[in-house]
Amino acid sequence: MIVAPFGRFTEGRVPDPGVARLFTRENRWQARLDVEAALALAEADAGLIPKESARAIALTARIEKLDIKRVLAATAEASHPLVPLIEEFARAVGSKHGGWVHWGATTQNITQTADVLVLRDAHRAILGQLGRVLRSAAALAESSATMPMAGRTHSQHAVPVTFGFKVAVWIDQLAAHTERLERLDDRLFCVLMGGAAGTFASFGGAGRAIEAGVARRLGLHPMRVPSRAVNDGIVELVLVLAQLAGTIGKIGKDVYALMQPEFAEAAEPVPEGTVGSSTMPHKRNPQLALDMLTMSAELRALAAPALESMLHDQEANGAMTALLEDVAASAAVLAGDMLARLEVVVGGLELDPERMRANMRLSEGMIGSESLMLALGEKIGRQRAHDVVYDVAQAAATGGRPFVELLREDPLVGATFSGDELRVLLDPAGYLGLSAETARDLAGCARSVADRLDALPARVELATR
Amino acid sequence: MIVAPFGRFTEGRVPDPGVARLFTRENRWQARLDVEAALALAEADAGLIPKESARAIALTARIEKLDIKRVLAATAEASHPLVPLIEEFARAVGSKHGGWVHWGATTQNITQTADVLVLRDAHRAILGQLGRVLRSAAALAESSATMPMAGRTHSQHAVPVTFGFKVAVWIDQLAAHTERLERLDDRLFCVLMGGAAGTFASFGGAGRAIEAGVARRLGLHPMRVPSRAVNDGIVELVLVLAQLAGTIGKIGKDVYALMQPEFAEAAEPVPEGTVGSSTMPHKRNPQLALDMLTMSAELRALAAPALESMLHDQEANGAMTALLEDVAASAAVLAGDMLARLEVVVGGLELDPERMRANMRLSEGMIGSESLMLALGEKIGRQRAHDVVYDVAQAAATGGRPFVELLREDPLVGATFSGDELRVLLDPAGYLGLSAETARDLAGCARSVADRLDALPARVELATR
Amino acid sequence: MIVAPFGRFTEGRVPDPGVARLFTRENRWQARLDVEAALALAEADAGLIPKESARAIALTARIEKLDIKRVLAATAEASHPLVPLIEEFARAVGSKHGGWVHWGATTQNITQTADVLVLRDAHRAILGQLGRVLRSAAALAESSATMPMAGRTHSQHAVPVTFGFKVAVWIDQLAAHTERLERLDDRLFCVLMGGAAGTFASFGGAGRAIEAGVARRLGLHPMRVPSRAVNDGIVELVLVLAQLAGTIGKIGKDVYALMQPEFAEAAEPVPEGTVGSSTMPHKRNPQLALDMLTMSAELRALAAPALESMLHDQEANGAMTALLEDVAASAAVLAGDMLARLEVVVGGLELDPERMRANMRLSEGMIGSESLMLALGEKIGRQRAHDVVYDVAQAAATGGRPFVELLREDPLVGATFSGDELRVLLDPAGYLGLSAETARDLAGCARSVADRLDALPARVELATR
Amino acid sequence: MIVAPFGRFTEGRVPDPGVARLFTRENRWQARLDVEAALALAEADAGLIPKESARAIALTARIEKLDIKRVLAATAEASHPLVPLIEEFARAVGSKHGGWVHWGATTQNITQTADVLVLRDAHRAILGQLGRVLRSAAALAESSATMPMAGRTHSQHAVPVTFGFKVAVWIDQLAAHTERLERLDDRLFCVLMGGAAGTFASFGGAGRAIEAGVARRLGLHPMRVPSRAVNDGIVELVLVLAQLAGTIGKIGKDVYALMQPEFAEAAEPVPEGTVGSSTMPHKRNPQLALDMLTMSAELRALAAPALESMLHDQEANGAMTALLEDVAASAAVLAGDMLARLEVVVGGLELDPERMRANMRLSEGMIGSESLMLALGEKIGRQRAHDVVYDVAQAAATGGRPFVELLREDPLVGATFSGDELRVLLDPAGYLGLSAETARDLAGCARSVADRLDALPARVELATR
Repeated sequence: MIVAPFGRFTEGRVPDPGVARLFTRENRWQARLDVEAALALAEADAGLIPKESARAIALTARIEKLDIKRVLAATAEASHPLVPLIEEFARAVGSKHGGWVHWGATTQNITQTADVLVLRDAHRAILGQLGRVLRSAAALAESSATMPMAGRTHSQHAVPVTFGFKVAVWIDQLAAHTERLERLDDRLFCVLMGGAAGTFASFGGAGRAIEAGVARRLGLHPMRVPSRAVNDGIVELVLVLAQLAGTIGKIGKDVYALMQPEFAEAAEPVPEGTVGSSTMPHKRNPQLALDMLTMSAELRALAAPALESMLHDQEANGAMTALLEDVAASAAVLAGDMLARLEVVVGGLELDPERMRANMRLSEGMIGSESLMLALGEKIGRQRAHDVVYDVAQAAATGGRPFVELLREDPLVGATFSGDELRVLLDPAGYLGLSAETARDLAGCARSVADRLDALPARVELATR
Repeated sequence: MIVAPFGRFTEGRVPDPGVARLFTRENRWQARLDVEAALALAEADAGLIPKESARAIALTARIEKLDIKRVLAATAEASHPLVPLIEEFARAVGSKHGGWVHWGATTQNITQTADVLVLRDAHRAILGQLGRVLRSAAALAESSATMPMAGRTHSQHAVPVTFGFKVAVWIDQLAAHTERLERLDDRLFCVLMGGAAGTFASFGGAGRAIEAGVARRLGLHPMRVPSRAVNDGIVELVLVLAQLAGTIGKIGKDVYALMQPEFAEAAEPVPEGTVGSSTMPHKRNPQLALDMLTMSAELRALAAPALESMLHDQEANGAMTALLEDVAASAAVLAGDMLARLEVVVGGLELDPERMRANMRLSEGMIGSESLMLALGEKIGRQRAHDVVYDVAQAAATGGRPFVELLREDPLVGATFSGDELRVLLDPAGYLGLSAETARDLAGCARSVADRLDALPARVELATR
Repeated sequence: MIVAPFGRFTEGRVPDPGVARLFTRENRWQARLDVEAALALAEADAGLIPKESARAIALTARIEKLDIKRVLAATAEASHPLVPLIEEFARAVGSKHGGWVHWGATTQNITQTADVLVLRDAHRAILGQLGRVLRSAAALAESSATMPMAGRTHSQHAVPVTFGFKVAVWIDQLAAHTERLERLDDRLFCVLMGGAAGTFASFGGAGRAIEAGVARRLGLHPMRVPSRAVNDGIVELVLVLAQLAGTIGKIGKDVYALMQPEFAEAAEPVPEGTVGSSTMPHKRNPQLALDMLTMSAELRALAAPALESMLHDQEANGAMTALLEDVAASAAVLAGDMLARLEVVVGGLELDPERMRANMRLSEGMIGSESLMLALGEKIGRQRAHDVVYDVAQAAATGGRPFVELLREDPLVGATFSGDELRVLLDPAGYLGLSAETARDLAGCARSVADRLDALPARVELATR
Repeated sequence: MIVAPFGRFTEGRVPDPGVARLFTRENRWQARLDVEAALALAEADAGLIPKESARAIALTARIEKLDIKRVLAATAEASHPLVPLIEEFARAVGSKHGGWVHWGATTQNITQTADVLVLRDAHRAILGQLGRVLRSAAALAESSATMPMAGRTHSQHAVPVTFGFKVAVWIDQLAAHTERLERLDDRLFCVLMGGAAGTFASFGGAGRAIEAGVARRLGLHPMRVPSRAVNDGIVELVLVLAQLAGTIGKIGKDVYALMQPEFAEAAEPVPEGTVGSSTMPHKRNPQLALDMLTMSAELRALAAPALESMLHDQEANGAMTALLEDVAASAAVLAGDMLARLEVVVGGLELDPERMRANMRLSEGMIGSESLMLALGEKIGRQRAHDVVYDVAQAAATGGRPFVELLREDPLVGATFSGDELRVLLDPAGYLGLSAETARDLAGCARSVADRLDALPARVELATR
């Protein structure tokens, strides 16, 4: 798979997310055999095929029992995505029962349901990663809950915040995406078992019963209308992962910015031995943050083709099916790779509270202008106070003299506040609002989501034997 | 963003969706005044500003009381999106109380909360349209529940379906998107009231109380972290509307295809007097289906910038805020315009059951090949039956002789089935599976969603007086 | 047009690009009349219609001679984009000659050719803006050609550059996009005059002659195949403007970053009276850089629907035509608005060479590590020198002691270079390479492109009288 | 990025485009060694490193001389994309000369220049494919130049065309994209050799000479400003390939539509043994057209991230570099795969002129309405003629009686034309305009482009020995 056609050179620094390996041909073909097994067993229950045949089919449904080379050769010959696999499977089942393999099913019933099984495993792996990230973020938010720094809007100093408050913003969005992922269940994890067009015609009257039997065995849901043209559940998975990519891109930008030498407030871990440049020995690059930004763009770019894949014709357009298949797999792999970086970054982030304080002083008190304006406003009205402080601040910005000095000289401000009062009003540490509370609240939120994720079963067991 | 810079020439044929007018400057500014009013009242409750001032502010918060020209002139001067409006508002409130306008708030608190109010009205209008579409679709699904036609995958005949079954697929997805829209509530319809960076510092200790007071008066929710960098709720609205655009694009494609003279199975209504071409007097174009396709592409194209707008820097990046503001408004307007077309198309679709039957006969029985193969498969195994019927079908396709004729001549098929049995097996009307049941089930589903939507209040009343 | 549905509050700070007004209904309809006039004159030349009628048509082809309200009412009635206009036009021409209006043409022949005329004016306006930007950039590159600052890769200090060198990068790309825009001519500025499907059937044998006559009068090219399904020229315009948006986004990012208080190396002009925040009086926001970033994202988002609009069906799909029409107009307007901001930013950029030097010292000599490594490498080999300097640099980064100090203590470095030699090697001002030459070269390049653009005619005159 | 994570099951049916294998690690690393060799030789010419060392470096620059495993292990350790390769390379060169490997270069100088070499080979392969497609298209256009069929706009019958005319539209666009690809040369095939930030500081005064030496040896161009932040040449390659994807998507749609049983006018080749469905033996799916549609969407989706990758920070942002690297490789591979399908489809397209004629008769003469209207218009004016024919056509469409019959009964039409005249006017074969001429012209154009492509050298030889 060419998600990153050349791999990422940072792979040695991050844990294996385990998502890519779910999408190997072997694993996907095994999932198809699982679906064929569940189908045969459900059909036997419904009396469509002999029970003995179903048992033989279920017992043979292991990829290691098939001759893969034969399947590959036949695929080249027949130019069909499934028939060669089921022919080989039928052969392995044997002549007595093999004729009942794939009874009444259309190709897409098997391939799509199998892909959903694979996506479910990927979804589970991603939730596991999110749980670990949220737990690290909780610790980080708490330990930095009261660490003051400049709050910045449009990268200009606004009012003070704490680092923990910044992490609270990360947690809030990561938790929201986690909830979105959990909520996808009933339109995503479905069997597509309605036959060629979704009418169940090939199953006689037993269609819904067979669908239920397959669904039960695979731990999936039936579909309200089991048509190939209905793919919004998978599209939505891609869109939620793309939103996750939006948030991880934002976190990557934050870390990347704070790691600049002009800021130097935070840094992703740079393990000993990491080389930043072939020619500039001093370079310590934000490698993982960069990866997060690259992958964020790549994953967000999948939203458009996912949405385009909804434009089926009539009962199905195979081009749309193939498109979404590629897109969904790519999105899952990218999400796993992106979260692997985030895990390391959030878990090992280095903070420099000294530098945060120093940077806050850069604007020489101006970061406290709101605090001052409100105190002044209580005496002379908000708008007038704004105008007074505005004039002083702009004079400081363009004239080169310190804000505080000019404030003291201002007739109105000087008459209203003593030097000490001014100092208190402009002290960033006294103007943090609910920064710490928010950091701690969200740490709690992160932990409770992580606990919920930990309680999930590691894997849904299939009942196909 | 792209919202039909030139209007659409089809406007005269469809009902006014009423969404565009929500986004006029006047309506958006009124919403800002509503938020300022709610803020003042909440602050008075919390003891931050005098109750009398709050009452004066709330009473003056009507756009018609302001001098718009003065605001526009000041905007050009100050290059600020809100300060000129609140200055004029304060002036209108009068010198005694005007100084308490906008107390402790940052611009984005007002503008974003106001935009959310506007988006809520748009959301309500869109749900209303969806209700009407679903009700029409229910009627259509029922009236055509048993109307047989060719089921087509990749636009090749697959197995028979009914027209009602096709409508069931439309309903299933429209109902799902409706549910998605309804579910957006708690991260979308929120007040952003945390001050400049989301820490509530400017409200003293009363931040959360004021937030609650504003939220209650406006019928909105508080935010877990009231930071400008948290915008996933609005992004999600755009993504759900983009998914809706995916489905409406699919329906547009279906209607467009079935209206081709080679199909002629269905047609959107073409009212008397509609001109198709300036030079080909006979032209009856699928104008509304075309609009749906155009708008589908335009709305889907908004997903990418919506996702890009999540890449805030630190506490906020105004470029991202402005981007999402433009994107969300454009998405809402497009959704309304698209649904207005869908309403007319679904409500007035003309069907030709004769032509559906005639087209089904085009493949001279081949549409029944699955039915035949399964019957044969019960005797000789599925795979062998597939191969036998495959050979006959390919011979018919390439050799020019009718499928049924060749089947009769086939030694195995001929020996297994009589001519009458063959005719029954190949009769499409006998192979419709659950088409009709599905159509009726989904009609029921559509009506129950529409009933739920009808029960929604027409508009959320604000408690700002 | 809702390109920015709410306008931009910065409009008062930038010159009017003049693009939006080209896309008003009045201007677009006038262009259609121009095409009808050219068509009639060409047809008269070819003997298809009476010369006297052509003259009457050409003389009447002024929008102010038509009753617009009548056209609008008829459009709502007929649901057709052109027929009502030509009916009113024919009426204005009078009963004697009006019957020859629009002879043999299909709607799209007129509407698309007219839109191309409008796009040509927009293209010309955009080239004019680019010329002005390039001229300002030339001056800026020269005045800062030798102004040293930290070169940054991944926002980490790399090697020194000069500010002029940075501007050279901007110029190089802006010049390249200008050349791309100039090169679009022959597949973009074309008449579409082949009739309903592009076969010229309605013009008898005179098709190519009429096409040539219309093309000559409008200053446009004929098409190799005049089919509506051929739209790559317009798509390419959108793509080039999207590339321009990429570059302007990059410049916006640069300015935005350098304006941060932690950098404070450069700032966009903030005219007196500009308000940054309603609550933080000190705020000086990078408003124009923010606009550039917003518009960059909006314009880049148009590439996807432009490309999707190439998927015509057979001889045309009107949904694709309408899509590209909306997209191209939106792209042109956004490009104009974006360039208006760039013009002001590049023309008024404020630089702080002191601060540039101070920031360069932040890494305490490490920015000279390459220079040192190469000098050392000449003695002990590149790779070994890299390793030695790497170890010292990483020790400085993690241990807190200054780089230079540690270098002096290093046995190998200390033995090789004296303190003075070290100082020279690490002096950024001595390691600027071709920064200044490149800045001056590109200033020259910018001026020569600007000169070429200045030489363009202000407007192509139509020969339709 | 998305490049068919699972392969395509149709691979056995198409020729190997040979693009994917250019992007293997081995081939890309070889290209890096080629660049290092060229660099050493150029540096020796400039007197920067010993000539003997340069020769040793150039002679060792073969991937098979390196220990790949060692490089991979070191990459995991150092987390750097190139340093491990050059360390191993230096080791292979030997201790005497190895120290001069990579002298003065930064990583990106080597990796990007090497990737450009790989992209040049991909570009060449793609041009080769285009040449073959154009030659097949020329033959097809000629053989079907006079084969009449319905021209369709919005998939409604418009006026008659010929099949060759349709192919002319394909050729026109494919030829245009070919010209675009050829024109990319000077901003795409460039060495990036300016050192860490593009200032050439590390090369002393010899920077431009070394750049020229490397460029000459590799057959590439120098850059006006050799900065990593300048990437528009590669972005443009992706955009041109995306436009190509637009056109191939259009051709795919055409073939897909004409292959529907309701049309049956054309079909892609379906070789014996191809299986269409696992359950519907008769299915003959448009497999290659479907692939073209899927890949078209996937390739078009790369335009957005390519454009986003232009948003570099200052002298470079590695996230943008990596993004474009992934995107460009994915685009090249997809283009190759897409063209491989197109080659087979255009080369083997099966046409059914009988069915084309039959379908044209579906509208019972209405396809000739323009011809009739113009003839009538010469007597009574265009607009009045339009109205008369419009009324008859709409009556035929809604009332069920044949157009011709109603025409004869119309007092005005009946009075103006005899039955024979009517028949001639409505005969599609008499209203083909320049269809055949256009088909033949474009066949000539296709051949001349193909001839030009054939004359290109198979591969640019490097002068690195």
